[in-house]
Amino acid sequence: MTNERAIRSVKDWRRVNSGGVVSIIDAFTTRAFGDSSIIFVTNYHPLSKTLVEHHFTNTNRFGNRVSQAVPESVLWSYIVQIASAIKAVHVANLAVRCMDPSKVILTDKGRIRLNACSVLDVVHFETQRTLPELQQEDFIHFGKLILAIATNNLTVMQSHNLMPFVDQLSRSYTPELRDTIIWLLTPAQAPAIRAIGELLSGISNHIVDAFDSSLHANDSLYSELAREVENGRVARLLMKLGSINDRPEHDNEGWSETSERFMLKMFRDYVFHQVDANGRPVIDMGHILACLNKLDAGSQEKITLTSRDEQTVFIVTYHELKKQVASAWADLQKPSRR
Amino acid sequence: MTNERAIRSVKDWRRVNSGGVVSIIDAFTTRAFGDSSIIFVTNYHPLSKTLVEHHFTNTNRFGNRVSQAVPESVLWSYIVQIASAIKAVHVANLAVRCMDPSKVILTDKGRIRLNACSVLDVVHFETQRTLPELQQEDFIHFGKLILAIATNNLTVMQSHNLMPFVDQLSRSYTPELRDTIIWLLTPAQAPAIRAIGELLSGISNHIVDAFDSSLHANDSLYSELAREVENGRVARLLMKLGSINDRPEHDNEGWSETSERFMLKMFRDYVFHQVDANGRPVIDMGHILACLNKLDAGSQEKITLTSRDEQTVFIVTYHELKKQVASAWADLQKPSRR
Repeated sequence: MTNERAIRSVKDWRRVNSGGVVSIIDAFTTRAFGDSSIIFVTNYHPLSKTLVEHHFTNTNRFGNRVSQAVPESVLWSYIVQIASAIKAVHVANLAVRCMDPSKVILTDKGRIRLNACSVLDVVHFETQRTLPELQQEDFIHFGKLILAIATNNLTVMQSHNLMPFVDQLSRSYTPELRDTIIWLLTPAQAPAIRAIGELLSGISNHIVDAFDSSLHANDSLYSELAREVENGRVARLLMKLGSINDRPEHDNEGWSETSERFMLKMFRDYVFHQVDANGRPVIDMGHILACLNKLDAGSQEKITLTSRDEQTVFIVTYHELKKQVASAWADLQKPSRR
Repeated sequence: MTNERAIRSVKDWRRVNSGGVVSIIDAFTTRAFGDSSIIFVTNYHPLSKTLVEHHFTNTNRFGNRVSQAVPESVLWSYIVQIASAIKAVHVANLAVRCMDPSKVILTDKGRIRLNACSVLDVVHFETQRTLPELQQEDFIHFGKLILAIATNNLTVMQSHNLMPFVDQLSRSYTPELRDTIIWLLTPAQAPAIRAIGELLSGISNHIVDAFDSSLHANDSLYSELAREVENGRVARLLMKLGSINDRPEHDNEGWSETSERFMLKMFRDYVFHQVDANGRPVIDMGHILACLNKLDAGSQEKITLTSRDEQTVFIVTYHELKKQVASAWADLQKPSRR
């Protein structure tokens, strides 16, 4: 690493904002590991696997590798996602350069992202190759990647004679897929160049399918989220009530029986400690949730709270209780008043 | 409604499963409203607006309608979504037929769906028109819909001479958008027909953009969901602890001081009732959450619990506490054992 400009080339990658490319944040050199290292900082996708781990490591119980044909729909989904990622990269005047199965990660079911982009830009900075040349090479890498997955054979990546592999395709896949891979693998006769737009318009049908599945995925995530979003509210309210009720330091303070905290303690019993006619515990999460939601909303509904000794009975609205929670909580947060 | 087959034609719509079409569930006739009505049952999208409500009802403070140019990116996003919906419908050997701005709904930011599909199939069942004819007409309706939004003029939908509206486009929009709308509005010379695939390959660039935004939307929904799912866990745990601790019916049972519930009560104080060196309340949601997460995970970390009278001190792991919560919770749920 002699050239400072090499490492600055990483900055260009910040312009790439694609759902199919792992975002590059920064790169710098360090001697912290006892040598001269380059550190690349990228977005982190927890629990992701590489395509090698996902497609090339299935073994049967004897430890032999099992080769299962990857369904064509999965291959098309990969093709669409990578094509979309390449488009974003080429539009930003960059080239992917590195598209090995060990550098493409699977971050969610069927969702892939190109990783380790920009690394070769820095490491091979001195080898001045033109951008069009590198972009044209991206198509070949892309074709090899899909061919390797389709034939379940990693040696494709290093092979120069790809025809035997392409011939295998017709056994399990449609001519359309085969033709797309051949298109990717066939370099244009210079000076002609191939643009990503050509590929996109050829596979537009599959892009629409991928788009539609993505909308469906969105819909289901959205409805899951709608269900879960309530949880945060409930959890915060429960933490407040837990902090307010039964504080030991208030044990001997001789609260007035009409104090707000006494009422909240009765409310706590009402919410959590319901019993049936025989005095047996009744556990009903629905009741707990309903009470907490009404409390959070400050409903005008009235409830009857009875003290444990049955000497005190209050009729209060959730609205009043909500005010009391707020004031007790505020008291706790300015302890100097005590 | 004389023909029973008319209403059965709705069943065909169940085959259409597209993120851009409101799903049709069923249709039936009823006399419940004092007349002969047909009821269409469709998926419900709460809080959705029609395109008329969204684009054609902006008024300024004098009550006059304000016409703001809709950004081109929004129009492309609509075109891609509707094209994808039409593809799903045409592939199922059906035609949309009804694509009025008052029948297309906006269910989320920028997300549209064709509604009221199948209604004309039933109502105009007697008028036997061929499927290819209806499908060709879909393109014209589609073109009019986009033109109406782009020119902010609802009269487009009823106009026969559309050229004046098309001419307005060049003021705010690119030639590409204009050409796409013209393509949609120009009927093919019979017997030639236009297929949705032609359109898709022409706008493939925009489909990829829509696909990528949809992936980004997916990513942010997913990370929101990941955060909220944690809250659900915490809320459930808090509800369990609330139900277990301080039950009044256990008040006079003279629990052994080493019983599991006594320990959980001390844990409750540890989690919620921390005080500083001067005995003042310390409210730290981070501490509460950290404790609850360790409890839920059953961590092997040890903590020291002290009883309120400071006579009893336990050193326990979260793992043990977790077992005690589980057993106390199980006890509560089979009250007959008491």
